[in-house]
Amino acid sequence: MRRSDVVVVGAGLAGLTAARELTAAGRDVVVLEARDRVGGRTLNHDLGDGKVVEAGGQFAGPTQDHVLALAKQVGVETFPAYTQGASVYVHGGRARRYRGDIPPDPLALPDLGIAMRRINQLARKIPLDAPWRAPKARAWDSVTFESWIRHTTAGSGALDLVNVLLGSAFGGSAADASLLYSLWYIAGFGNETTPGTVERGIGVTGGAQEFRFTGGSQLISQRIGDELDGRVVLGTPVRAIEQDGDRVTVRSDEDTWSARHVVVAVPPALAARISWRPLLPPQQDALFSRMAFGALMKCEAVYPEPFWRADGLNGQAVFRHGSPICSMFDNSPPDGEPGVLMGFLGGPQWHTWATRPPRERRAAVLRAFAAAVGKPALQPVAYFEQDWVGEEWTRGGPTSVPGTGVLTELGPWRDRPFGRVHWAGAEHSDHWNGYMDGAVRSGETAARAVLGHE
Amino acid sequence: MRRSDVVVVGAGLAGLTAARELTAAGRDVVVLEARDRVGGRTLNHDLGDGKVVEAGGQFAGPTQDHVLALAKQVGVETFPAYTQGASVYVHGGRARRYRGDIPPDPLALPDLGIAMRRINQLARKIPLDAPWRAPKARAWDSVTFESWIRHTTAGSGALDLVNVLLGSAFGGSAADASLLYSLWYIAGFGNETTPGTVERGIGVTGGAQEFRFTGGSQLISQRIGDELDGRVVLGTPVRAIEQDGDRVTVRSDEDTWSARHVVVAVPPALAARISWRPLLPPQQDALFSRMAFGALMKCEAVYPEPFWRADGLNGQAVFRHGSPICSMFDNSPPDGEPGVLMGFLGGPQWHTWATRPPRERRAAVLRAFAAAVGKPALQPVAYFEQDWVGEEWTRGGPTSVPGTGVLTELGPWRDRPFGRVHWAGAEHSDHWNGYMDGAVRSGETAARAVLGHE
Repeated sequence: MRRSDVVVVGAGLAGLTAARELTAAGRDVVVLEARDRVGGRTLNHDLGDGKVVEAGGQFAGPTQDHVLALAKQVGVETFPAYTQGASVYVHGGRARRYRGDIPPDPLALPDLGIAMRRINQLARKIPLDAPWRAPKARAWDSVTFESWIRHTTAGSGALDLVNVLLGSAFGGSAADASLLYSLWYIAGFGNETTPGTVERGIGVTGGAQEFRFTGGSQLISQRIGDELDGRVVLGTPVRAIEQDGDRVTVRSDEDTWSARHVVVAVPPALAARISWRPLLPPQQDALFSRMAFGALMKCEAVYPEPFWRADGLNGQAVFRHGSPICSMFDNSPPDGEPGVLMGFLGGPQWHTWATRPPRERRAAVLRAFAAAVGKPALQPVAYFEQDWVGEEWTRGGPTSVPGTGVLTELGPWRDRPFGRVHWAGAEHSDHWNGYMDGAVRSGETAARAVLGHE
Repeated sequence: MRRSDVVVVGAGLAGLTAARELTAAGRDVVVLEARDRVGGRTLNHDLGDGKVVEAGGQFAGPTQDHVLALAKQVGVETFPAYTQGASVYVHGGRARRYRGDIPPDPLALPDLGIAMRRINQLARKIPLDAPWRAPKARAWDSVTFESWIRHTTAGSGALDLVNVLLGSAFGGSAADASLLYSLWYIAGFGNETTPGTVERGIGVTGGAQEFRFTGGSQLISQRIGDELDGRVVLGTPVRAIEQDGDRVTVRSDEDTWSARHVVVAVPPALAARISWRPLLPPQQDALFSRMAFGALMKCEAVYPEPFWRADGLNGQAVFRHGSPICSMFDNSPPDGEPGVLMGFLGGPQWHTWATRPPRERRAAVLRAFAAAVGKPALQPVAYFEQDWVGEEWTRGGPTSVPGTGVLTELGPWRDRPFGRVHWAGAEHSDHWNGYMDGAVRSGETAARAVLGHE
């Protein structure tokens, strides 16, 4: 039995942040990670020649102060996502250029405007730290986001466009999520002084997609891993956690650790799969079980250069109907060499496309890219996919989307410590829940909780 | 490594039925059960003097042909639930006697009638073996059952009464479930020749609560366990299942078994917690993860005799608002000695009451019983509770209630064999899903699938 002050389970951004804070406070910490790498839902894909591109979480933006500060501390720089030129809206076989963050659909636009204003109004009524205390919490948690959008708007265009956005944001659609959860999630697109809005969530300039990290977002975790030199144990899935009043025993297939405190920083649905003694409180088990992740794959094509830029395009596109991709971004490295297009394949599209033969899916993705930026997109020098749903230690992406009834009945159990066990992970943050910033915040909070609990 | 033709995981009704059928077909079978008993969600509570009362699944009724036939085969008799006299509807401090299965709420009744007729009409449109192919499947799966009831009825009375029924049926409320799932669940209240209706689900005489099993429902499993003499291994939680093309390896904490086929007959959400090699198909993992169980506790009070019978009461009651109990039944043994009242404490009430001090909860339950049948209910000779949510190997009750979006996107994966692994359990049946009859049907189907796969 090996001993440590604190065992952290999971070497994603949340766990590593907690370990870093606790180490800085003088505690002896070990981080047990199931994968053979750090970074969790962030993952750099090697393009050769020292270049990388992100295959997992990658963007940051204003009010995401915590991940931006952490990156700075570990010497990872940011650069602006490429935004020069026009975006493209692909709908019904037609591609239409536009500026800004809202696709120019003449039929959907008025409704979308109404829905967004109303969402922002309602989101302001949600107590971020206790959405179940919102004035109409029970009613808002008993209807789906889709039901509410249908009720609020006249046609189906606004719903369609919201679902395009949710394909990547939820890895799902408005039918999967409760209205209360959706409003709360949007209310969290801010920091302690700036309330969240839809615009900040979906925006590139001024929004959550404004920055990328030089060297790839996983570099932040790799840098912390290096700092924690020798304290991160890879390839070590934790199977069981037992506690009496004084110490916690953490069992992997290989080793057993004894600690005074434990921070579990894995997705809640996976935390519920650990064998607990005593058992998790049934409400916490029930909540974590219901926090299953959405379905998301990233599909990326590499070209000798970002040819679309010369054509006045920024590489961003939104696809309505008929495409496996819901949205596309220019994912080239900061110097623009090589050119990379990245498409989100999520939610209903994932369910349609994930089981198709890879060649067929690749062809459909490239056709979508080509519909937005032209035929050269059909001839990439490389193409790769990262399917987060098949990842044993994530089981989907990008985050968990509680359905109706969950938040009001079980929400208060999300962050409640279980004896000497504290929780971290992107799903344990009120601000930027499910984002890298939320992960960092949760790790900081968990570290403070451990120190306060000693 | 021990060898067997078939390993069955789980000795509830489904697993035992599969093991019985496979043994009858000449196969060498072993059943691995995590608990130290057989019976899964059926559980006899010992009243002393050779008397028992059910603390888990207990009722059966017309069209539940499979559990009734199985009971007959293993020599377990049925007796009619006690129905002589009036039921009681408790609402707003008033108790009102009534006959039949529908509480006599003058404000709710017209709406409830409309809703029930409409539900029965829509349920007939659902293909029981493929609800995702219903004409409006996508639309019906994007709204909650609550949204639909609100839309269909004028006041809130019908919704309230539906929620009282769902407190025990779903261990939840109409806000938790998709409309499509709810319609499909009700469509399954029948057999191959008789379509399901709301009435058959909620009814006592002529409905799903018509019969009980002499000696308690768990006796069926105990009898099969005896038949399988030596082939049921208790106290053996299965942790990992690995397969190559030819054989399946099943690992518990103690032993490792090698089999040609495996039947996994545990709740889907628990099946997802097994460590699988190769991994479960991500869609099946995602579905099973989303099949978390509702919240249900049974609260039972024992009296020297069923004193309410002399007062012209059948011991049945429905409680609207203000009570921890949603419905109550006379749960006395067949000879009426002693008298037992059983209350379902489920769904929202579970969330309110499960964390209260046991004495406080007991007092509130007995007050509810007394409101229905009079003050003698306050003085039981014994009182016990069975909370299925805290059971490590069930994690809730009585069944899983998929939220919106789940059935249309993931439903087809429910019963799909995974290599040499087949699925059983009450949640794997189209008829009487979540009921004992569904469990038996699923076990029979799984046994046939194994034999057909050889």
